Parts: sequence; C-alpha cells; structure tokens
Amino acid sequence: MAKIDLNCDLGESFGAYTMGMDERVIPLISSCNIACGYHASDPLVMRKTVAMAKEAGVGIGAHPGFPDLMGFGRRNMAVSPEEAAAYITYQLGALYAFAKSMHTKLQHVKPHGALYNMAGKDYKLALAIAKAVKDFDPSLILMGLSGSESVRAAEEIGIPVAREVFADRAYMPDGSLVPRSMEGAMIRDENEAIRRVIRMVKEHKVTAIDGTDIEIVPDSVCVHGDNEKALTFVTQIRSALEAEGIGIAPLSKIVAL
Amino acid sequence: MAKIDLNCDLGESFGAYTMGMDERVIPLISSCNIACGYHASDPLVMRKTVAMAKEAGVGIGAHPGFPDLMGFGRRNMAVSPEEAAAYITYQLGALYAFAKSMHTKLQHVKPHGALYNMAGKDYKLALAIAKAVKDFDPSLILMGLSGSESVRAAEEIGIPVAREVFADRAYMPDGSLVPRSMEGAMIRDENEAIRRVIRMVKEHKVTAIDGTDIEIVPDSVCVHGDNEKALTFVTQIRSALEAEGIGIAPLSKIVAL
Amino acid sequence: MAKIDLNCDLGESFGAYTMGMDERVIPLISSCNIACGYHASDPLVMRKTVAMAKEAGVGIGAHPGFPDLMGFGRRNMAVSPEEAAAYITYQLGALYAFAKSMHTKLQHVKPHGALYNMAGKDYKLALAIAKAVKDFDPSLILMGLSGSESVRAAEEIGIPVAREVFADRAYMPDGSLVPRSMEGAMIRDENEAIRRVIRMVKEHKVTAIDGTDIEIVPDSVCVHGDNEKALTFVTQIRSALEAEGIGIAPLSKIVAL
Amino acid sequence: MAKIDLNCDLGESFGAYTMGMDERVIPLISSCNIACGYHASDPLVMRKTVAMAKEAGVGIGAHPGFPDLMGFGRRNMAVSPEEAAAYITYQLGALYAFAKSMHTKLQHVKPHGALYNMAGKDYKLALAIAKAVKDFDPSLILMGLSGSESVRAAEEIGIPVAREVFADRAYMPDGSLVPRSMEGAMIRDENEAIRRVIRMVKEHKVTAIDGTDIEIVPDSVCVHGDNEKALTFVTQIRSALEAEGIGIAPLSKIVAL
Repeated sequence: MAKIDLNCDLGESFGAYTMGMDERVIPLISSCNIACGYHASDPLVMRKTVAMAKEAGVGIGAHPGFPDLMGFGRRNMAVSPEEAAAYITYQLGALYAFAKSMHTKLQHVKPHGALYNMAGKDYKLALAIAKAVKDFDPSLILMGLSGSESVRAAEEIGIPVAREVFADRAYMPDGSLVPRSMEGAMIRDENEAIRRVIRMVKEHKVTAIDGTDIEIVPDSVCVHGDNEKALTFVTQIRSALEAEGIGIAPLSKIVAL
Repeated sequence: MAKIDLNCDLGESFGAYTMGMDERVIPLISSCNIACGYHASDPLVMRKTVAMAKEAGVGIGAHPGFPDLMGFGRRNMAVSPEEAAAYITYQLGALYAFAKSMHTKLQHVKPHGALYNMAGKDYKLALAIAKAVKDFDPSLILMGLSGSESVRAAEEIGIPVAREVFADRAYMPDGSLVPRSMEGAMIRDENEAIRRVIRMVKEHKVTAIDGTDIEIVPDSVCVHGDNEKALTFVTQIRSALEAEGIGIAPLSKIVAL
Repeated sequence: MAKIDLNCDLGESFGAYTMGMDERVIPLISSCNIACGYHASDPLVMRKTVAMAKEAGVGIGAHPGFPDLMGFGRRNMAVSPEEAAAYITYQLGALYAFAKSMHTKLQHVKPHGALYNMAGKDYKLALAIAKAVKDFDPSLILMGLSGSESVRAAEEIGIPVAREVFADRAYMPDGSLVPRSMEGAMIRDENEAIRRVIRMVKEHKVTAIDGTDIEIVPDSVCVHGDNEKALTFVTQIRSALEAEGIGIAPLSKIVAL
Repeated sequence: MAKIDLNCDLGESFGAYTMGMDERVIPLISSCNIACGYHASDPLVMRKTVAMAKEAGVGIGAHPGFPDLMGFGRRNMAVSPEEAAAYITYQLGALYAFAKSMHTKLQHVKPHGALYNMAGKDYKLALAIAKAVKDFDPSLILMGLSGSESVRAAEEIGIPVAREVFADRAYMPDGSLVPRSMEGAMIRDENEAIRRVIRMVKEHKVTAIDGTDIEIVPDSVCVHGDNEKALTFVTQIRSALEAEGIGIAPLSKIVAL
C-alpha cells in the first residue's frame, strides 16, 4: 500500500506564551517536530509535548533551530558548519532526554526554519548537520526538503532520510521550491494542493511551474496546526489520502532504516 | 586504599568569553563538572570540554544550573520542583549528546551554584532533581553537599550519590556548612584545609566550628581552576593526599554504583 | 471630582508570540504599563505599543521586570539592590527611547511581577528602584502597591508616587494584601469588588479581612486585558465608576507631581 | 590644527565574564563605544563603563549590536530594516539612561560587528539605522566606515556623521576595505599602519591596494584594548600623532554638528 507521513511542528509554546493548537492537530498527524528551546519551547513545554506525542503514538522528531528566540529562528544567521553541528547536538540531546525519561524514542530530526532552508541549499552546512545527527545516533531519520542538499548529505553519509514535500508550494523543473517572491509560488486552491500530493504519492510525479512533469518521491507532507484553517486542511488531506487508499504512517514505517 | 575524588567546574566559557584555565587544571583532577548552557557555556564549549575531559580520562559530569546567564546561575530563583526537574533533564540530555557523539559516558550530575545550594536545603527540590536524574539514567551519580537534602533525596530514591566536601569551609555540628556570613566560615590556612581533608578521608571526621568532632564521609573534594592560586592549591592537595597514601580517583571508582 | 486611574499591562507579546488583547483594552484604560524586553516584549512590540498608547491618549508607563523571559518575570530572583537598580535604568531608558522617538513622554514606572512584589516588602530593594527612577527623571511617577515599602521609599526620596489597589484582593488590617495562600484572599464577587473600589475612591476606606475598616487612598486600580472575562470586568468597573461620578484619568492628572 | 579621534570598544564584559582591559585603554583614547546588552554587556557593566568614561572625559558612544550574545554579534543576521531600527532605538535608550542618570551625555552611535558591516553595504539598512538615531536625537553623531552606505545614509538624512578608518586595513580603489579574504587585506607592519593614518589625517590620502592614491577623510581611527599588543599599538599611534602635531580629540570636537 502507498503510504505517506503527515508531519507538523509541535511544542512551540514558551513560558507564559502559548502557540499552536497541539491537542487538536496531534490526532490528525503521524509525526511531529518538537521545538528544542533555541527558537521556541522550554523544558516544561518539551516534557509535556513529548508526553502528548507518546500518548498519541505519533513519531517524535527533534526540531532544532537557530538560537534566535526573538526571531523564532526564521532569520538566516551566518553560523559556521561547526556551530550548526554543535547546536544540533545540543538540542537533539535535550529532546532525547525527555523522550528517554518517558521510555520513548526519537524517530527523526528536522532542522527548523531558517536553518532548514539554509541547509537545504548549502551542502557544507547540510553535511555538518547530517554528521551531527549520525554521530549522536545513526538510526535517526533526517528530514529534509525533497531534492535539497540536506537529503543529498544524509544519503552520502548513510543515514536514513525522509524527503519532505509541501502541498501548497509550486516546484521548479529541477525539483526545488519556487521562491515565495515569484509569481505562482503558492498553490492557493486547496483541492489542487491535495490532488498534487496524491499524485506525488501514487505516481511520484508533480507538475512543475513550467508545465513539465518532474519526478518527486515524497516521504512526508508538512502540515500546520496553528489555526482553524490549517486544521481543516489537515482533516481534508487525511480524508482524501484515505479515500485514495493511501496509508498515513509515521516516518519510521516509511523510510528504509 | 583510601580514595578521594577531586572535582572541578570546567567548560564555563561562553561565546567570545573565556573563563577558567581548563587545560591547566584538568591534569590535576579526577572528575569535572561541565556547564550545560543555562548559567554558562555554549554548544561549542561543551563539545570542546567533553573532548578534553575524555582525552584526560577525567570523569565527566553534567553541571546544570539556573537559566540565568547574566547572574552565572548564582542567584536564587524561586523555581518550582517541576521546573527544576525539567531544567535538569534538558541540560543533562544536552551534555549527554556530546558525550555520546564522542563515544564516551557521563559519570555524574552536580547541580550548579544557587540550584545546588537551594536543593541542599529543600527536600522537595532535591527530590525532584534526583528523580529527573534517575528517570534519565539511574546509573548516574548525583553529587551533593555531604549531609544535605540532596544526598538524602538521592539515597531515598536509590541512585548512586557522591558526598562532596569543601576544604576551605568550616562545618556546623550538624554537618552543614557554616554560612559565609558567620565568623570562621572560611578555613583560610591552606595547610589546615589540607589536613582537614586528609582527616576526613582517613578518619571520616572533621572538627566542627564548636570544637567537637563530627562524622563526615567524603567522596569528592571541590577544587577550583580559575586562577593561579587555585591551581597551586590543587597541586598541593594532590601531593599531600598522595604522600598520605590516599588515591585520587574519579567518582565512578569511589561511589558504590 | 473624585478621580481614579485604571492601569493595565500592555505590550507583553514577544517575537512570534502574541499575548493580551491590547487593541481592545486600550480604549477602556487611562494608563498602561509597557513591558521592556526583560520578562516580556521586544523592540518591535515596544515601538508598536508606545504608538498605540500615544494614539489612544493613555498614560505611558515602563514596566521593567526580571531578566527571566522563560518565567515571565514571575519568579523571585535574589538580585542585589544594585542589580535591580541597573535593570530598572536599562529598561526605563529603552522604553523612553521609543517614546521620545515618537514625540511622546513617559508618565510612570511600575516594576513588574516578582520584582514588584519583592520591592513591596523589601525597603532596600524599593529604595534602590526609587533612586534609579529619580536619577533618570525625578518627574516620573513610581507606581507601587498601596501601603508597601515601594510607596514608602518613593515618598522618602521625594518622587511622585501612585498608590495602586486591587479590586479583587482582600486586605489585611495593616493595609497589606491578604496572601493568596490564605482563605478569603480573593474577592470573587465582581459586584462586591466594584463596590469596594468605589468606596476606596469616595471614602478612602476598605473593609479588611478581619471586618474592620481601614484607610486606603487609591490612585490607580490594576485591571487586565488578556481575556474576555477581564475585558468585561473593565467595562463594568468603568460604567460603575462613571455612574458614581468618579472620573477616570491617567496618573498624571491624579498624582501630585 | 589637524585632529583625529581614537575610538575603542569598551564595556564588553558580561555578568561573571570579563573582556577587555578597559581601565588601561581608556586614558589612551578620545571616544569609546559601549556595548548595550545585546551582543555583550549587561546593566551593571554599562553603568560602570559610563562612569569610567565620564570620569576620563572620553566621548561616550552607544555600540548597539545584534541580539546574539552567543555569537558576540559577529554573525550576519537577516533582520529587516524595521527590526534593526528598533534594536538601535532600544539599545540607544538603554545606554542613554545610564548617561543621563550620571549627568553626562551620549556623543555618538556606532553599530557593532556584523550590524556595522551589513549596514555599511546595505543602504536600506543603513537608512533605517540612521533614521532611528535621528528620531531619538538628531544631534547624535553616527559613526560609519568611511565611504560606506552608513555614511551616505547619515549625510542624506542630515545627522552628524563620523567617518571611521582602520590603520591595519588596506583599501580598494573605491575607498572600501579590502576584504579579509584577499591577499594584502591587512597592513601588518605597524609603522606603516601609523604612517598611513598620519597621511590620511594630514593629506586626506591613502594608497589603495592597486598603488593609486585615493582620497579619504578620517574622523576617527578604530583601536583595540583587549590585549597587550593592542595597548602598545595605541600608545605608539598616540605618540606618532602627537609628534606630527595632530591633536587627539573626541568626535564632538571634530565632526561638524
């Protein structure tokens, strides 16, 4: 049976600040990316979120980001590969400790925000991150943008890798995302977005922005749980996938380990 | 053979800021407490310090503290036991990740600064910390002030515990430290300080501030490596201990595991 | 005409995190306390909040707190009076800069959360804070809990002071707040809360928890704007005050400068 | 008489961490740039440094940087012009408060590290910063790299501007600095470095890396005080300037206000 993972960022609250509707989205997804205290979250939030994910049977991922709480890790920072690697190790270990303390496991690592985007285009940075993951635990899955340098780096050093796709983004003929600044970057029709995902899963194909079909092999689709509209979309994509006979499963059931 | 551990705080540099003379003190000690990024240190410093400790064969301990970089974790903070426990788990995991990535192990956990002092007097806080350590790894040694609530909590929940003593501090008849605000709190004569440590190790006794002898069983002596005077003292205490036939060994060789 | 100020904490959002319903509460209040980046807020939020308060004609106050973003400044920290004073100066200046850049003025300073509570009971701390305010600008009003050490310190060094009262809190016979841990600490009946405020304003009296009447002279009532219930209460207290012929005015129209 | 300012970064210590030899360099310089708590420093350090600069009669400048303590503000961050402007206002106000509280004044603003470098090349960013300075106080001098976008932006909006030069850096024919990655970027011979500065001051000329003479009008030379070698160099350049009859004076005596 064709299968796909639905992943969502969780555990982004911080101290007195609440973000996201974690309780409502968690029954709808198969894997979650939990913030690790650098761009968002704190130890109490991490503990609570790991407990919630364990309870829901959702694959638990670390979501390490830049040390930029004020910018929510969304601003590019000119860190060296060594710095990025050390930040990954630190945050990965911190989340791991909550998982281990609750007798559960980490499934994957997905760099967050600007770090994800930068690593996707910078092989040296991607390699440093992939090595940091491998050095800590070579059985962890590294999630990266399909077609990105992150995926290439993970494959090269031989750790399991999950190729992430976006339902609402258009693709260039080379498989990279159309930059948000370009016309047509966003797929605004939700039904079309869902149809594109289904085709990716079933046919490993998507129509690029120039009209040509390109190959894409999706392991996970990124969804959001921070507003009502997003929750509705997750419900719809779930139903559509199930109606097509596509299974929704955590990465550990999809990616070759 | 009588044995004692000499422990020292290491890895307290942060970003562009250097603190301590880690390279010089590390050959003189048997265990180190490595800061974990809350009161001091950062991921690059943690990586470097773990590597240095592994190379030197020194027992590696996590030194988690309050999230108070500006105050170096030295100011009491009214955190709840739940908050303290989560801060311990977070920092412990972060340091663990560097150790695991370098194929080495953590030996112990020693709460830092104000957290250490508060836990020493507050059983609920001490218990929350001890449980956090046990939940993560019940074979880790928790280091606490000899005679403190931290030691009592660790014993009660059944994790290995190291009783720490101070060469330069006077003791109350009940085994607690004479508060710094009291006359006679500090042992300023270094030879006397060393003689007191030797007696603690050999006879399990120390003369309290009221002149009576009290029982004290030391597993580790706290030393410092942040200035020349401190380094000289460590060299002297080492020589004196060795001259008395007392072995200097990491906690893992001293504490019943 | 009898007058009273209604003050509310504003500008507590931070980065990607939203807190409070500032736009909705601002038309209902006469003074606001704007967070200054230590326990909450960031420079963009400060700029926006000052602009909003200026536009609404609301008295602008600095709301400096402890450097504890993770705990929202609500946890006691054992800072020295010198540290507290420097934290006040720093945050006060930061907010002042936004006000000055927009051609408006600061009206008052209200320490936040745990710092407010600690200063209310610790004269040395209160004095250090009051001096920091005076050194920066002796015409700024310091807001403190009615009957507290903060008010005493401000009076002693001769800066304008605003005595804050709480509608929903019971008072001890000595004019201090009944601790939250005691039975009867909270006035849960909103109508009674409003009646008590009206009596404070008109008669300078409130019934203490032991049934005796005590004197209390209120300059400002603390209200909240972070949930629907709180907003409803502010609307109600406004109407009740106006119905009683009590004017609602910013501190600068109430406190002798 | 020809005059030049010697400026140095001061007040970069943080909490328990000491950086720089402020006491020793301060008698040798005429202006200082004081860190404002984002990339370095804290309120106690700011207070102490402002007091020291006032006592020494040195021109006091704010040295606002990126919110990146871990990276000491040296890493480029993709902040928006609005964010940069707000960060400048915040830090400028914070330092101003210490100066005002001690009855002294701010003379100038010099963005720090990566923010300085980025603004030097990005006119939009430079303009946002210059406007933030002007909005707060149009009499403050903005210090920028000679020939940079920062200088251009300050001139365009009509605030006083100080053109900074570097003794130890080579220049491109267009007046920009030779990138550090290029051969010949650094002037390693200290005597040559000093001769170049003297020629800049006296003749408004320097030999660019291609051997041609270019015009450069220096208002201030950047010096360092964080190691013995740097201190020796400041002493030497002072003597050489004085021997040439060049006055050393704070920016406020040099720049047209």
